[in-house]
Amino acid sequence: MAEQEIGPGGEFLAELRAVLRVDQVSVDGGDLQTFAIDQGPVTDFQLPLAVVWAESVEQVQSVVRAAASHKVSLVTRGAGTGVSGGAHATAGCVVLNLTRMNHILEINPADEIARVEPGVINGDLNTAIAAHGLMFAPDPASYKISTIGGNIATNAGGLRCAKYGVTRDAVLSLDVVMADGSLITTGHRTFKGVAGYDLTSLFVGSEGTLGIVVGATVRLKYLPTIVRTLAVFFPSVQQAAAGVLALGAARVQPCILELMDGQALEELDFRNGSNLSQRGTALLLIQFDGLAAEAEEAVAAVELEKLGGTVSREDPEEARRLVDLRRNNRGLDVDAENRVGEDVAVPRSQLVHYITALGEMAVRHGVDLQVIAHAGDGNLHPTFSVPTFEPAGIAALNAALDESVAKALELGGTITGEHGIGQYKLRWLPLEQAEDVLELQRRIKELFDPQGILNPGKAIPARP
Amino acid sequence: MAEQEIGPGGEFLAELRAVLRVDQVSVDGGDLQTFAIDQGPVTDFQLPLAVVWAESVEQVQSVVRAAASHKVSLVTRGAGTGVSGGAHATAGCVVLNLTRMNHILEINPADEIARVEPGVINGDLNTAIAAHGLMFAPDPASYKISTIGGNIATNAGGLRCAKYGVTRDAVLSLDVVMADGSLITTGHRTFKGVAGYDLTSLFVGSEGTLGIVVGATVRLKYLPTIVRTLAVFFPSVQQAAAGVLALGAARVQPCILELMDGQALEELDFRNGSNLSQRGTALLLIQFDGLAAEAEEAVAAVELEKLGGTVSREDPEEARRLVDLRRNNRGLDVDAENRVGEDVAVPRSQLVHYITALGEMAVRHGVDLQVIAHAGDGNLHPTFSVPTFEPAGIAALNAALDESVAKALELGGTITGEHGIGQYKLRWLPLEQAEDVLELQRRIKELFDPQGILNPGKAIPARP
Repeated sequence: MAEQEIGPGGEFLAELRAVLRVDQVSVDGGDLQTFAIDQGPVTDFQLPLAVVWAESVEQVQSVVRAAASHKVSLVTRGAGTGVSGGAHATAGCVVLNLTRMNHILEINPADEIARVEPGVINGDLNTAIAAHGLMFAPDPASYKISTIGGNIATNAGGLRCAKYGVTRDAVLSLDVVMADGSLITTGHRTFKGVAGYDLTSLFVGSEGTLGIVVGATVRLKYLPTIVRTLAVFFPSVQQAAAGVLALGAARVQPCILELMDGQALEELDFRNGSNLSQRGTALLLIQFDGLAAEAEEAVAAVELEKLGGTVSREDPEEARRLVDLRRNNRGLDVDAENRVGEDVAVPRSQLVHYITALGEMAVRHGVDLQVIAHAGDGNLHPTFSVPTFEPAGIAALNAALDESVAKALELGGTITGEHGIGQYKLRWLPLEQAEDVLELQRRIKELFDPQGILNPGKAIPARP
Repeated sequence: MAEQEIGPGGEFLAELRAVLRVDQVSVDGGDLQTFAIDQGPVTDFQLPLAVVWAESVEQVQSVVRAAASHKVSLVTRGAGTGVSGGAHATAGCVVLNLTRMNHILEINPADEIARVEPGVINGDLNTAIAAHGLMFAPDPASYKISTIGGNIATNAGGLRCAKYGVTRDAVLSLDVVMADGSLITTGHRTFKGVAGYDLTSLFVGSEGTLGIVVGATVRLKYLPTIVRTLAVFFPSVQQAAAGVLALGAARVQPCILELMDGQALEELDFRNGSNLSQRGTALLLIQFDGLAAEAEEAVAAVELEKLGGTVSREDPEEARRLVDLRRNNRGLDVDAENRVGEDVAVPRSQLVHYITALGEMAVRHGVDLQVIAHAGDGNLHPTFSVPTFEPAGIAALNAALDESVAKALELGGTITGEHGIGQYKLRWLPLEQAEDVLELQRRIKELFDPQGILNPGKAIPARP
C-alpha cells in the first residue's frame, strides 16, 4: 500500500484509538479479511484499513466525525449477509461494524412497536416479542443471523412480504448519524404520520450511502396462532407458476407462496436427503395464517387441483421442515463469480412466460439453472452457475445473467426485488432507470454526503 | 395589484394561451375565487393570477416550463378536498388544476395494479375495479370526490388504514414533472423493488412541493366478500378507548375501527335524524372483513362486552348507513378559523389518557369539542369550535388547539396523522421536528425546485 494512503488512515486510526478501547479497533490481517466482504459476488476485492466496532450512538458519531475530518470512507455493516456486495470494502475504507449495538431498547405490546439498536438480530427480536403474540414481519432467509440494521439498509424482504410487506413497511422512525457526525431522528412512533417529507423511507434501502442507522422504531404485526401449510406438486414449473395466478384470481392471500423448480428440488434433496424431486417436477409451498387460514387453504386446494396439482396438507412439523429447507436452500454457499443467485421481480402475470424464457436462456448459454421464487410477489431467484471459474464458462454465465435481467425488464420487471443494488448490480441499474433519475439520486447522495465518505460506489452508479 | 406583479404573470399567461385552448386558462373572477382555496382553514387569503386546466402530461410540462422561465409559482390541485391548506393559492401564483386528467389508463387484474392519471376520482377507480374483486385501499372521507393525485400529494389515509395501509403503501410508481418541466418515472410495476433510493415515497405526501405527479401505478387489494359490522356503545368515551386496546390485545385486526364521543354522536343525530346518542355516550364502530370476519367479530364481541360495551351486530344496510354517517360527519362544513378539525395521532396506549386530557382542555379554554378517531391507528380528529369569529373566542380556540397538539407530542404522537402540514400546520411542525431535520428537508426542496416555484410556503417551514 502506498505511503500516502497509509497517512490519512493512520491519523484517523490514532484519533479513534484515543476514544475507543483496544478491542474496538482492529488492523489484524484476519479481521481485515473477514470483514472485507459480505456474501455478494466479489469482483473487486479490497482490504479495509481497519475494522471498528462501535458500541453506542456517540461512538458512531465520533467515528464519523473523525472519518469526515480525514476524508476516510466508511463501509458500515451488520452481519454481512447481504448478497449484492453492499458491504464489500472499498479502496482505503474503514469498516464500521455495528453488531455490538445489539440491544432491544423497548418492547411495547400495547403500541405494537419495538425500539432496537441496529445490531439486534432479526430472529432475536422475533423471539423476544413472540411471548407478546407479536412478530417483526420482514423475514429474509438470513433472519437467524442478519441484523435489523442490515435489513433496513437493504430494505430486506423475505417469504412473508406479499401478505405482510417489506422492511420499509415495518419501520416507523430512524435515528441516523449523518455524514458530518450529527444525529437526526426521522418519522414517528405512531402507525400513521405525514409531517414533512418521508425521510424514513429515503434512508430505508439506501445501503448506508446517505447516513448510518443507529436506532429504529419498528411496527410489529400479530403473530398468527393458526397456520395451514400446503405442498402442491406439479408436473411442470409452468403449471406451478399458473397456480400462483390462480390463487390471486381466487383472491386468497397466502403468507408464504414459494415456487421451486425441479433443479431446485433436486439440490434440496441432495443437500438434505429429502425426496421432494420424486413427488413432482415443481413445488408450490403455500402457507396461510390467521383465523381465515383453514378457509383459504380449502379454496387454494380446490383451485390448484383443477390445474393438475397434487395437494398435500402438511402437519406443523413437516411444514416447519419444508419452510426451513426453502429458507436455507443456499446452504453454506455464498454467491461467487461462477454461481450467482439473481433477484429480479416481474409482474405476476408474466411469471409463466418468464420462467419459460429462463429455461431457454440456460440451454442456449450452456449454464446450469435452478429457479426459486417468492412467487406471491413475482420475485424470482434464478440461480445460474457453471462448474468452474474457467473464463469461457464465466463469460457464458454473465451472458445468461445479462439476458435474464434484460428479459425481466422487458416484461415490466425490476433488476432487484429485495437484494439491493450494492456493488454487484450497478452495471444493470442504468438499464432500469433513466439517466435523469440516476442523476437525481446522485444529487441526493451529494446533498447528504458531500465528501462521499459513506459507502462510496454503492447503490447508485457514478456519473458517466 | 401592483403593475410589476401583473407583468410576469401576463407574459406567462400569453405563453400558455399560445399552447392551450381558451377553456383551459381562466382569469374569470369566479374561477379565481373558487380555486383560491381548498377545505383547510384560511389565514392568508390570496387570489391566484389564473387557473389553468392541463389535460395531458405534455401540457403540464409546457405549463411548468413557462412558469420556470417567468418565475411564476404553481399551486397544483385536484378536487381541493385537502383540509390543511396545501392547495391554498399563494401570492402571485397560478393554480394548476389536474381534474381533467381523469383517465384510468390500465386495470390489470392479474397483476393487481392500475395505472391512472392524477385527476381520477378515488371512488371512480374503486367502482371500475370492484368488478374484478379488487379495491384501491386508501379511503379518505372525501373518496367520492377526491382525486388519486390529491391522495398521493397528501399521503391520504382514511378508515381502512390500520389493516390496509395508507396511500404510500398503495403506490408503486409515479410519473412526475419536475420543476424544470422534465418528466421522470420512479419506482416499478412490481410489488417489490429496491433499485436505488425510494423516490416514490419521497414524492408521496410532499404536497406538490417537489414535483407534479402526472401518473401513478397503484397496487390494488382484494375486495372482501364478507364483512361483519359491530356497533358497540359504551357509557364513557374512556371505556370505548380502552376497548381499542382490548381488541389489539386480543390480536384481531378490524378493517375499520372508529371511535366517536357523545358530542360527535349528538352532531350526527342532529344532521341525520339518527338516534345514536340515545344508545350510549361513546361508540366504537367496528368492521371486520375477509374470510376471518366472523371469527374476529366473535372475539371482539366477547372482549368489548367484558369492558361494559353494549354490542350490536348490524346488518349490511345499517352497517353501510353507519359507516356513511361516520365518513360524512363533517357534513358540508369546511374548517374555518372558528372550527378546526385536528388530526393528531398518538401511540395507541395513550388513547384513553389523551381523550381525557382533550376534555379537560376544552372545559378550561371554554370551547366546544367533539372527538372522532380512526382509533385503530391512534389517529384522532378532535374538532374544537367556538360559535363566532369574535377575537376572544378565536384566541381561546387557538390556545386549545396549541395545547392539544403539544399534549399529543408529549405523549409520543405526531401533529398530523393523515391530513398533512399544508399551510395551516406549519406553525406546529417545529414542535415535532428538530431544526436540523427541517433544514435537511429545505435542502431537499431546494435540490428539487431551485427557484421555489412549486407550491411555495407549504409542507415545510421557511428558514427562521
